[in-house]
Amino acid sequence: MTDLNLYNLFNPSRILLVGASDRVLFSAGIARYLLEHGFADRLTMVNPSGRAVFGRATHTGIAAAAGDGPFDLAIIAIPAPAVPDAIDELAEIGCPFVILESAGFAETGPDGAALQREVVDRARRCGVRVLGPNCVGVVDTTTRFASTEVLEESLRPGGVALIAQSGVFGSILLDWAPSHGLRMSKAITLGNRCDLDEADFLNFLADDPATRVVAMYLEGVADGRRFLDAVAACRRHGKPVVVLKGGRTGPGAHAVGSHTASLAGSDAVFEGALRQAGGIRARSLEHLTDLARAFDACPAPRGPRVAMITTSGSQGILATDAITEHGLELARFAPETIARVRAIAPSWMTIGNPLDLGPSGIYRDAIAAVLDDPQVDALLLHIAIPWGSVRELFTGPDAIEGLLGDPAVLRAAAGRMPILLSHVGYPRFVEFVTEAYGSFLPIYPTAERAAQTLASMWQGPEAASEK
Amino acid sequence: MTDLNLYNLFNPSRILLVGASDRVLFSAGIARYLLEHGFADRLTMVNPSGRAVFGRATHTGIAAAAGDGPFDLAIIAIPAPAVPDAIDELAEIGCPFVILESAGFAETGPDGAALQREVVDRARRCGVRVLGPNCVGVVDTTTRFASTEVLEESLRPGGVALIAQSGVFGSILLDWAPSHGLRMSKAITLGNRCDLDEADFLNFLADDPATRVVAMYLEGVADGRRFLDAVAACRRHGKPVVVLKGGRTGPGAHAVGSHTASLAGSDAVFEGALRQAGGIRARSLEHLTDLARAFDACPAPRGPRVAMITTSGSQGILATDAITEHGLELARFAPETIARVRAIAPSWMTIGNPLDLGPSGIYRDAIAAVLDDPQVDALLLHIAIPWGSVRELFTGPDAIEGLLGDPAVLRAAAGRMPILLSHVGYPRFVEFVTEAYGSFLPIYPTAERAAQTLASMWQGPEAASEK
Repeated sequence: MTDLNLYNLFNPSRILLVGASDRVLFSAGIARYLLEHGFADRLTMVNPSGRAVFGRATHTGIAAAAGDGPFDLAIIAIPAPAVPDAIDELAEIGCPFVILESAGFAETGPDGAALQREVVDRARRCGVRVLGPNCVGVVDTTTRFASTEVLEESLRPGGVALIAQSGVFGSILLDWAPSHGLRMSKAITLGNRCDLDEADFLNFLADDPATRVVAMYLEGVADGRRFLDAVAACRRHGKPVVVLKGGRTGPGAHAVGSHTASLAGSDAVFEGALRQAGGIRARSLEHLTDLARAFDACPAPRGPRVAMITTSGSQGILATDAITEHGLELARFAPETIARVRAIAPSWMTIGNPLDLGPSGIYRDAIAAVLDDPQVDALLLHIAIPWGSVRELFTGPDAIEGLLGDPAVLRAAAGRMPILLSHVGYPRFVEFVTEAYGSFLPIYPTAERAAQTLASMWQGPEAASEK
Repeated sequence: MTDLNLYNLFNPSRILLVGASDRVLFSAGIARYLLEHGFADRLTMVNPSGRAVFGRATHTGIAAAAGDGPFDLAIIAIPAPAVPDAIDELAEIGCPFVILESAGFAETGPDGAALQREVVDRARRCGVRVLGPNCVGVVDTTTRFASTEVLEESLRPGGVALIAQSGVFGSILLDWAPSHGLRMSKAITLGNRCDLDEADFLNFLADDPATRVVAMYLEGVADGRRFLDAVAACRRHGKPVVVLKGGRTGPGAHAVGSHTASLAGSDAVFEGALRQAGGIRARSLEHLTDLARAFDACPAPRGPRVAMITTSGSQGILATDAITEHGLELARFAPETIARVRAIAPSWMTIGNPLDLGPSGIYRDAIAAVLDDPQVDALLLHIAIPWGSVRELFTGPDAIEGLLGDPAVLRAAAGRMPILLSHVGYPRFVEFVTEAYGSFLPIYPTAERAAQTLASMWQGPEAASEK
């Protein structure tokens, strides 16, 4: 088990698609994706009728396809009852890994559970490792391999590895990610996890150079001890693991039973164990993705002292409430910082924290002064200007760069401390910021969301042990 | 005071702009907006130099402009020290209302506070009513009058009246509203509220036919008793009042002091009094706007029994946790409802609540059955389908109508009970839904946000008194 190398799941050299079709919607998506994304040469397809799929020849069975092998990965999308025999046949032609996408197993009741046990028995007997069933497999934004159809935008590489138990949930998160600033390294959907589970993938991701943070949605843990050890392994490699668990409440746990047939277990026990292993608990889907974006872009804060720079006094106040309520504190600026800002500030400006710059226009210099302050552990930045007041300024990324400062300076600072932006206002402003600065500055929908994210980064177990 | 009619603030017949300019950014926005939005014939402009502004003649002073009057509204955008005399001159030409947008008063310190007192003294003496200073005045989406420059999209009419203390905050919320599905009836920024305050506007909005819900951001209350009476007046007219208050924490209250010179006061006292008056407390800006959207579209639920219909088991589970944690409960479907759904459901589908429809495609009929169930007080609907599985379906609004059902049926049901949608997935789907159904179905970013919104609607004081 310790020698398990899952790399070929994300970058297979030879792929066998069992149940290939250009008519069945779900299966067609898999074939189309692989053919359109540069995997045509690595792909062999099996269809019992032997008819062409998207104009390419198929084999009538697994044995008949053996000549195209050896395969390092098979993707199965056939009716559930036919799966056990397919596993045997794949073992016979030496295929070590299977992504089993078919549904109709433990999630459907006792008969399906029996069929799933049969699959596991056969796989164990012949040494084939299985991801699924009832999943959509994996996506890799570096190799661009995917065992499901994904939007082109979802393939923009980033540092977030997503592990979702349900296939549908993993897919809709992938569809949703690009418009929410979330960029993936890999995505894995576990499904009923009859064999490979979240611990296997966490151990793999701990060593994955493309992954900076792991975001997980689980409805239960396959093996508590192995899971916690794997979380700890990621932490040792400097990778935060953020976990959203469904079934926190009684009715939620009941709903879990009929969804992925998991045992939600005691929530308090889970919470305590996760914390001890160094994992971070997310309270909601937004909290999970807010944290994933932050950890992808920034280090955790070294301390709780937050500088808040704003152009809206009200946003500064709302953020201050959130900072305080979530266990952070407002930094006291060093005298040098105050002097630097005073030297450039208009007379009406009060120099405090939150630092409300109003329409002063001294944003870039004030930001630079605060970033140099040794008494600041993190920066929340809320530059929002009424469109009506500065419509001439909203012309594109160049104007924004003049406003906020040299991207290189901000990028260097963002390597030392978290800088989280938020924006309430003219929507194009956020696009301009992203175009000017790239993705290293995560942008949140409100100052309160940014403050909460920062607090959860700080309260992560690493920070706690330093307190 | 009881005869105060603020209507002319939102629909003035003759407007005097004091401090008109096409060079000073902020002032230029006011003139440009009025000239470009059909108010040219009602507008007279004063500029001390007497030079043309946007090609239109100006008067050198208020007295000189009298011949164009009588004016029912003056908008002032001149340096603060000149404001007291301007108030006297406006009184002399019989102008009853002033929107005072100039800054440089109580928010800047003792000198500014003294100047503000001078303004109030003069206004009281001559019976002129003043909104501001340090504000951007009002926006009315029915008359399209605005005393500040706003985006065309922000003028799409809706039932949400926004009252914001700060001008900047009001402006950036207006910029932000259209892309977040929030449609306004009116917006009012109070600024330092030296005279007209939130209670005056609440009393006015209680009778305003365009307003269905009032959303407020306050940093303090001008007069506690009058405010609570005005909240109660809105409730008597069936209009929920949702209040976000900045300065809940000690550091937040401190920041309030240097922003709008308000006293944040004891948060617990405010919370209790607001609740007693029938107001609803918002915890964050997102919570405020989530509630405003819901109340604009839907009645409050008659009870706590929620039906959750989903295509993603995981989203159903997360919503169930949120429903339970926020004091709502899952409805038990009536036997007739279960029978109706069973009759059309595929064999693999478990019929429960949450009702996970998966890829069954029976959405419109299942939704109709649940909406007819007398044991259901509210519906959460999360139809999210992986793009890869149904890319052919994502062709436009027509496809969505086929999916979710006849808009007329849903619109009728939404008049009886709240129906809150949520969507995680392919972003265009949300646009298609809005195009197919209009704005009567509010759409939330996650099922958890929709569940929290519903819980806050139910826990509103009206619902509480029925429990």
